[in-house]
Amino acid sequence: MTLWMPPVRDTMFVLDDLLDLPGNEQLPQLAALDRETIEAIVTEAGKFCADVVAPLNPVADREGCTRHDDGTVTTPSGFRAAYDQLVAAGWVTLAQPEEYGGQGMPHVLLAVIEEYLNSACAGFMMYPGILPGAVSTVQSTATDHLKDVYLPKMVSGEWLATMALTEAHAGTDLGLMRTKAVPRGNGTYAISGQKIFISGGEHDLTENIVHLVLARVPDAPEGSRGISLFLVPKILPDGERNTLSCGSIEHKMGLNGSATCVMNFDEATGWLLGEENLGLAGMFIMMNAARLGVGIQGLAHAENAYQKAAAYALDRKQGRAMGERPDPAAAADPLIVHPDVRRMLMDARAFTEGFRALAAFTALQIDLSHGLEDKAARQQADALASFLTPVIKAFGSDCGFETAVAMQQVFGGHGYVKEWGMEQIVRDARICMIYEGANGVQALDLAGRKLARDGGLVCEAFLGLVEGACAGASEDLRWLSGPLREGVHEARDAARFLLHKVKEDPDVLGAGSYPFLQIIGTIAVGWMWLRMAAVAAKSSDDPFMAAKLVTAWHYAGHALPNCGALRRKVEAGSESLMALAPEQFVRA
Amino acid sequence: MTLWMPPVRDTMFVLDDLLDLPGNEQLPQLAALDRETIEAIVTEAGKFCADVVAPLNPVADREGCTRHDDGTVTTPSGFRAAYDQLVAAGWVTLAQPEEYGGQGMPHVLLAVIEEYLNSACAGFMMYPGILPGAVSTVQSTATDHLKDVYLPKMVSGEWLATMALTEAHAGTDLGLMRTKAVPRGNGTYAISGQKIFISGGEHDLTENIVHLVLARVPDAPEGSRGISLFLVPKILPDGERNTLSCGSIEHKMGLNGSATCVMNFDEATGWLLGEENLGLAGMFIMMNAARLGVGIQGLAHAENAYQKAAAYALDRKQGRAMGERPDPAAAADPLIVHPDVRRMLMDARAFTEGFRALAAFTALQIDLSHGLEDKAARQQADALASFLTPVIKAFGSDCGFETAVAMQQVFGGHGYVKEWGMEQIVRDARICMIYEGANGVQALDLAGRKLARDGGLVCEAFLGLVEGACAGASEDLRWLSGPLREGVHEARDAARFLLHKVKEDPDVLGAGSYPFLQIIGTIAVGWMWLRMAAVAAKSSDDPFMAAKLVTAWHYAGHALPNCGALRRKVEAGSESLMALAPEQFVRA
Repeated sequence: MTLWMPPVRDTMFVLDDLLDLPGNEQLPQLAALDRETIEAIVTEAGKFCADVVAPLNPVADREGCTRHDDGTVTTPSGFRAAYDQLVAAGWVTLAQPEEYGGQGMPHVLLAVIEEYLNSACAGFMMYPGILPGAVSTVQSTATDHLKDVYLPKMVSGEWLATMALTEAHAGTDLGLMRTKAVPRGNGTYAISGQKIFISGGEHDLTENIVHLVLARVPDAPEGSRGISLFLVPKILPDGERNTLSCGSIEHKMGLNGSATCVMNFDEATGWLLGEENLGLAGMFIMMNAARLGVGIQGLAHAENAYQKAAAYALDRKQGRAMGERPDPAAAADPLIVHPDVRRMLMDARAFTEGFRALAAFTALQIDLSHGLEDKAARQQADALASFLTPVIKAFGSDCGFETAVAMQQVFGGHGYVKEWGMEQIVRDARICMIYEGANGVQALDLAGRKLARDGGLVCEAFLGLVEGACAGASEDLRWLSGPLREGVHEARDAARFLLHKVKEDPDVLGAGSYPFLQIIGTIAVGWMWLRMAAVAAKSSDDPFMAAKLVTAWHYAGHALPNCGALRRKVEAGSESLMALAPEQFVRA
Repeated sequence: MTLWMPPVRDTMFVLDDLLDLPGNEQLPQLAALDRETIEAIVTEAGKFCADVVAPLNPVADREGCTRHDDGTVTTPSGFRAAYDQLVAAGWVTLAQPEEYGGQGMPHVLLAVIEEYLNSACAGFMMYPGILPGAVSTVQSTATDHLKDVYLPKMVSGEWLATMALTEAHAGTDLGLMRTKAVPRGNGTYAISGQKIFISGGEHDLTENIVHLVLARVPDAPEGSRGISLFLVPKILPDGERNTLSCGSIEHKMGLNGSATCVMNFDEATGWLLGEENLGLAGMFIMMNAARLGVGIQGLAHAENAYQKAAAYALDRKQGRAMGERPDPAAAADPLIVHPDVRRMLMDARAFTEGFRALAAFTALQIDLSHGLEDKAARQQADALASFLTPVIKAFGSDCGFETAVAMQQVFGGHGYVKEWGMEQIVRDARICMIYEGANGVQALDLAGRKLARDGGLVCEAFLGLVEGACAGASEDLRWLSGPLREGVHEARDAARFLLHKVKEDPDVLGAGSYPFLQIIGTIAVGWMWLRMAAVAAKSSDDPFMAAKLVTAWHYAGHALPNCGALRRKVEAGSESLMALAPEQFVRA
């Protein structure tokens, strides 16, 4: 089985050639980094992931996690040792705040490490993956005392964290949650209730686990305006065990390395983060980081699957080329001669390379939103990152799954048996479309909060950026800027339709939200392709750059045409969706 | 967990209202069947599948099959008893030839039973599913003596059968196979070699298993022109065990109830079917039946997943309606109020109901191709069935899988855990895109053999039928006939592009084959929707018929718009696919 290789050359193309990060004066963090340093970090991260983490992946799937009768949970063989190495090598602290012991590197570098760790073993990455968001939440909401107690050990990775939101009856709709938090009058609260689907709720990687838990204080308003956020550690500062435990772990379709826990809180001691009833704001700091991370996880699965399928297509001999044969004497040619096999592989290249650029671009906007000097520029970067976050999450995980399925297809029947590892990637990738807000919720976030709330201003600013790039593109790139500009027009028509129609039909946003997100995702990646093609065109003698141009060309012909069909689906409106009575959905 | 319910009303709508089968004078088999009889058969089949077969499905996934050290294979608990009941109830003989003890019912009824059995438990259906095709092959190719020995017991289901084609190095490319058949001079051959991925190669359901095996006689021409077909029973007519055995069974992504076997033939005794070196022709009789069956299996998974998702959407309360709320006092509304949830459910309705009609229509063409009096009409029906067979297989299995994934999505996180059964449907449905000729092979069959070989005549005949239906549709159905006619134009443009371009570029057929198949699938199902809408419009006071019109409307707005984008992908040609050197597909 071909092992995953860190795509260092492609990463460096994005960070250096495309985004021009080394020594970039816009941010002090970047100004201090030269190309060699960035490349060394990326290369070392890739090496670590390939050597230490990737071998865990089949083991993780086969063994899964085990909950013992005493409520402890054992992770798959090798996880603990690999986690210790991850911490020792300093990868956990990379983009963490310097004041608590982190290295203060930009998010755009973190996005690279996240991709590599997820390609190597997503089930393993689930444990440290949540840390940067948890640290941001605690940093933004906790008292100085709490920060001093928890942040240094969270930043270093000595302690891990969870997001404890979901309850059995309250998933997307957090307003329905019932977990209670009763103030004890000593600054702590007694937290009682049951949370489900808690990734890393219990495990054997770290001694302590810091749960960030949503709960209601007595007499809190109903719904989402009565939710507060608490820090609830497994081990209390005095060394006592808190009264919380893992009741069971889920048996899932995949991602078996990640312990998905039912967590029972029985008057557990917790500390309020931020203000009572305003807990969702603090949680959303963590959630937004997690959403970006899930989109990147989709990319990571796609990249891993692509590499394996490409290797198989070069090796496996089956059928003969229609045109010239590489070896006319051979009984059969490698799969790579077949145009339909190449169609699947080129689709995968177009998605992975384009989305890698988009994810890095979006992470950079987050860095810029924190670090730019000019306030208006900071706000602009923040608005763009916020607009793109649901797109990254949903489009990245949808395409990541689709790519994994297509790469499995390249293997024929061998893709369906466990031996080759392809079916594991498909099973593991499936969850990305669901957790951290199902993709339909992301679409509604985009169409409702991000498009409609400001009457389309941020969306139009985004479309204007893409349109400007088309207008500014060289004549030689018309084969790409033309279809991309068409895509912008489709997106604008779709946005106008939604903004106009919603005045008379409150369901139209929900009805059109999914195809709308798909248009935005398609042109956002297309925008990156146009920018990458412009860079590559300058050095088209280099085979790597020539391949970039071919892949950009493929995107123009095979992805951008979707925008027209998607716009028509938006314009189909809500009528056919809402016409049936609920009971008519049941077969007679 | 909601159990699957046979969609009898919808089936009867297709058989009676749409296809007008009861008492149909075109075929004697139909002329003899009145509506009550057909409905009784469908209802009883549904009841049998729901009561006896559906309970096996979770067990099949959990237990899987077991190969023991002596080479025997045990199927999951309950399979043997259910198979005995299936045989005793006469379901196996339904569409089998009367001269060997079958009931001689038309294929169009068999298609219904196949759907129901596959929805109930696809892993179970794999065992008898292959019988009708195997019987046809033996009937067309065997000597009278062989027929007399084998067909009565195969028709009755007392013995089951396999298709033994694939070898480790020869999947799609059967020409590479190496299994040998040496004539013994007594009318039998000694068959030696290893076959893989043999569904039902060994099991405990029947005493004997009739393997139909492809192999090469000595000095056979190389490639696919040197392949012969043999009947190789597990138990020889004299009661001795033949020298063949199951070496191992595969561990797969899903379909665990089906034993996928490595079969070793060690000078096993076999009888030639048909002529030496012409074995593929006989095997294709079986294969075409199997391809139709796999498309129907895709439908069956989609229907099963749809029913569960619809029930969940009516029951699960999460979030509140944007417009009028069903119960303003409730903390939350059922999922069915949300337009995006309805989008997924309506897509599923549009596919399942439309494809059920298309599968039945295609099966009917097979009946007509055998039974019509007029030779030209028989040939026309055969050409249409042959044109639609790869479409049924690939479009049905692609959409079946996509539907299963979307229905899993309706469940949110609960769709990812094993408890609810949704993830099993996704895993089980995935294989349909791969086996019996991967979907890319189907697309090449359509674009190469079915479109290009006769210069587009059969394709144009098909498009003419759909266009004629659009022209003949009532003004009131313009909302559907308009987009469908557009789809026909897109299909015709795509076909012309392929036929024209292939003269200078042999790779263009392969490059455009997949989107071409998707256009044909989309308009074939759209054609069925137009015919169904015309029927439903006559009784639109009936809520069932009104729902048909709504679902047709949904198809017009949400599926037919894809044709334009797909045509553009066909017209993208082969250049961007074929430009990279093979080694450029490997990441550096």
